[in-house]
Amino acid sequence: MPITERTFRAGMLLLLVLSGVTTLAHSAQNYQLETVAEGLHHPWSMAQLPSGEFLVTERRGQLLHIDADGQTRVIRGVPQTYVAGQGGFFDIVLHPGFPQNGLVYLSYADGSAAANSTAVFRARLQGGALVDGRQILRVSPRKDTPQHYGGRLAFLPDGTLLLTTGEGFDYRESAQSLSSEMGKVLRIHEDGRVPADNPFPNEGSERIWSYGHRNPQGLVVDADTGTVYLHEHGPRGGDELNIILPANNYGWPAITHGVDYSGAYVSPFTEAPGMQQPDWLWIPSIAPSGMALYRGEHFPQWQGDLFVGALVDQEVRRLVMRNGEVIAEHALFEEVGERIRDVRFAPDGHLYLLTDSNDGRLIRVIPGK
Amino acid sequence: MPITERTFRAGMLLLLVLSGVTTLAHSAQNYQLETVAEGLHHPWSMAQLPSGEFLVTERRGQLLHIDADGQTRVIRGVPQTYVAGQGGFFDIVLHPGFPQNGLVYLSYADGSAAANSTAVFRARLQGGALVDGRQILRVSPRKDTPQHYGGRLAFLPDGTLLLTTGEGFDYRESAQSLSSEMGKVLRIHEDGRVPADNPFPNEGSERIWSYGHRNPQGLVVDADTGTVYLHEHGPRGGDELNIILPANNYGWPAITHGVDYSGAYVSPFTEAPGMQQPDWLWIPSIAPSGMALYRGEHFPQWQGDLFVGALVDQEVRRLVMRNGEVIAEHALFEEVGERIRDVRFAPDGHLYLLTDSNDGRLIRVIPGK
Repeated sequence: MPITERTFRAGMLLLLVLSGVTTLAHSAQNYQLETVAEGLHHPWSMAQLPSGEFLVTERRGQLLHIDADGQTRVIRGVPQTYVAGQGGFFDIVLHPGFPQNGLVYLSYADGSAAANSTAVFRARLQGGALVDGRQILRVSPRKDTPQHYGGRLAFLPDGTLLLTTGEGFDYRESAQSLSSEMGKVLRIHEDGRVPADNPFPNEGSERIWSYGHRNPQGLVVDADTGTVYLHEHGPRGGDELNIILPANNYGWPAITHGVDYSGAYVSPFTEAPGMQQPDWLWIPSIAPSGMALYRGEHFPQWQGDLFVGALVDQEVRRLVMRNGEVIAEHALFEEVGERIRDVRFAPDGHLYLLTDSNDGRLIRVIPGK
Repeated sequence: MPITERTFRAGMLLLLVLSGVTTLAHSAQNYQLETVAEGLHHPWSMAQLPSGEFLVTERRGQLLHIDADGQTRVIRGVPQTYVAGQGGFFDIVLHPGFPQNGLVYLSYADGSAAANSTAVFRARLQGGALVDGRQILRVSPRKDTPQHYGGRLAFLPDGTLLLTTGEGFDYRESAQSLSSEMGKVLRIHEDGRVPADNPFPNEGSERIWSYGHRNPQGLVVDADTGTVYLHEHGPRGGDELNIILPANNYGWPAITHGVDYSGAYVSPFTEAPGMQQPDWLWIPSIAPSGMALYRGEHFPQWQGDLFVGALVDQEVRRLVMRNGEVIAEHALFEEVGERIRDVRFAPDGHLYLLTDSNDGRLIRVIPGK
């Protein structure tokens, strides 16, 4: 005889309470998308200020301040940038001590068509403008393509700063070379100095933290565990998520699961000794950009999950995480119907999206009714 | 200066050959789908005979022989079955020593509306009929629902036989009870005797191998490693893939990532001590049925990957595997446009699909031109 639903439920609850179960509320995924600001010109990244207002980069070389009403204002004191192809302004992050020191970090394309590279600019935000700004890192060597800059920034728990760099498209072999800073994750101190404990102090660039990357445009550090998640655009069928550890070689272009967009092989190999396999692979490619680790209270079932923007698929992919591993993938926010350039989990406990167009939007994800 | 494509490719090849790389040819995924037989009435499972011909079960209680031309013939000597709801004939597998002993195993619904359960029938295939047939297992206790039978069979490398059983829909609490054989993986010897090394010799049913399952309709054993992969229908949002180890509790219905199709909670918990987390989770549900581990030569890039049929999604999901972990999911064969009931990797080196309808098809996947 089947036990009734109610008796059963009560029994299970008792059983689990007695056994010291880890509880995780499981509510329906009802959300609403709220447009905070629109009319943004190819916005690339956002950072939320302690006031709840926002800084947003536009690829064309503008940094915007956006208030709670969605009013935008251009911030002065930004660096000159090389705007072409994929080049321009990229990421914006606040120093962990921002409330005290007002420091912000901006990554961007520096140089000219003939000689350009990804760079990092540091300044203080004061009176609505950047002051005391200076370039604290410029990727070496320079390149002559306007593509594959990488450009994501993230602070590690130890206060050092990571920058992802692309391999410049025509220079993919450089991702395997420790003499080039292209196709790497670089690590510097907050003022640009090189940490003494970087993994390659005596071979090539001492700023290199990991190598063998193609064009990483997603980087998030789990403040609870220190785990560093990075995703990168692969060739067709080769977009990857990786957990980054210092000195690791992530294989590009020696190994890849993708093929060139022309259909040509990049490499006949998908694995090799000493090269890391991806923790997740997107087949087909989604063109990932931006990534957030959800630590909010509004959606308990999203706790600890990764959210990845998709340019080509025009949606967000939720990667359900358990003990650092992906156990499910779930498409969300398809109704936005635009390329997603950035996904951020902001200090106010909300997830935010930036859409990539010349009429781009900043969107807040809030609980549904 | 960028190195040319050609020089670069040659250099990489040399580098990798010198470093003792594991090679894996990476060809385009060009395939063709070839209909072997049609007009099958809700076919459930298939086994390929050493002759290259096929045995196919139909849910209505028929076992078919299908020759190379797709001609079907009904095989006599099958057991009586209870045909209702999800009940009828389920799986068909050959004994590992089939070329010598001719033994086949068939799982099916045994009994009546008031009292039925999943059972296993063993017989010899001789002269186009089953002879010496007898029931070697009947799940205890019986139930009065025509749902959630499980019903997949697979031999372990040690020659014992696994059977998946469902929890009968109205009896879900029984999946957590070692006194009931519902919602379990059971393990028996080839003749139905109970192996002495089963994990629960003195508690409830000694045939139990693992528990806490809902309705598992996919089971595959990796002959190379002995790894047992099982998938099961969850409630909405709770379809799971698990690696099965003896004595493990897979949590249903105490923990689940899904909700009832009515929208009601099954359990407020997604994790608990002593209960396994899924290795993969389908969100939303795909209604998985049938599973194959690809070990063929025609599609080197599929080597070692799992292929799962989807009833609701009417496609096959390829799970790209690395070291026993899912690193990507890829939808395939959407053009079939029918519910997929079974996916098998056959001894002839090809992948086969069975579509679930009253005009079902047996389909062979072959390389494209």
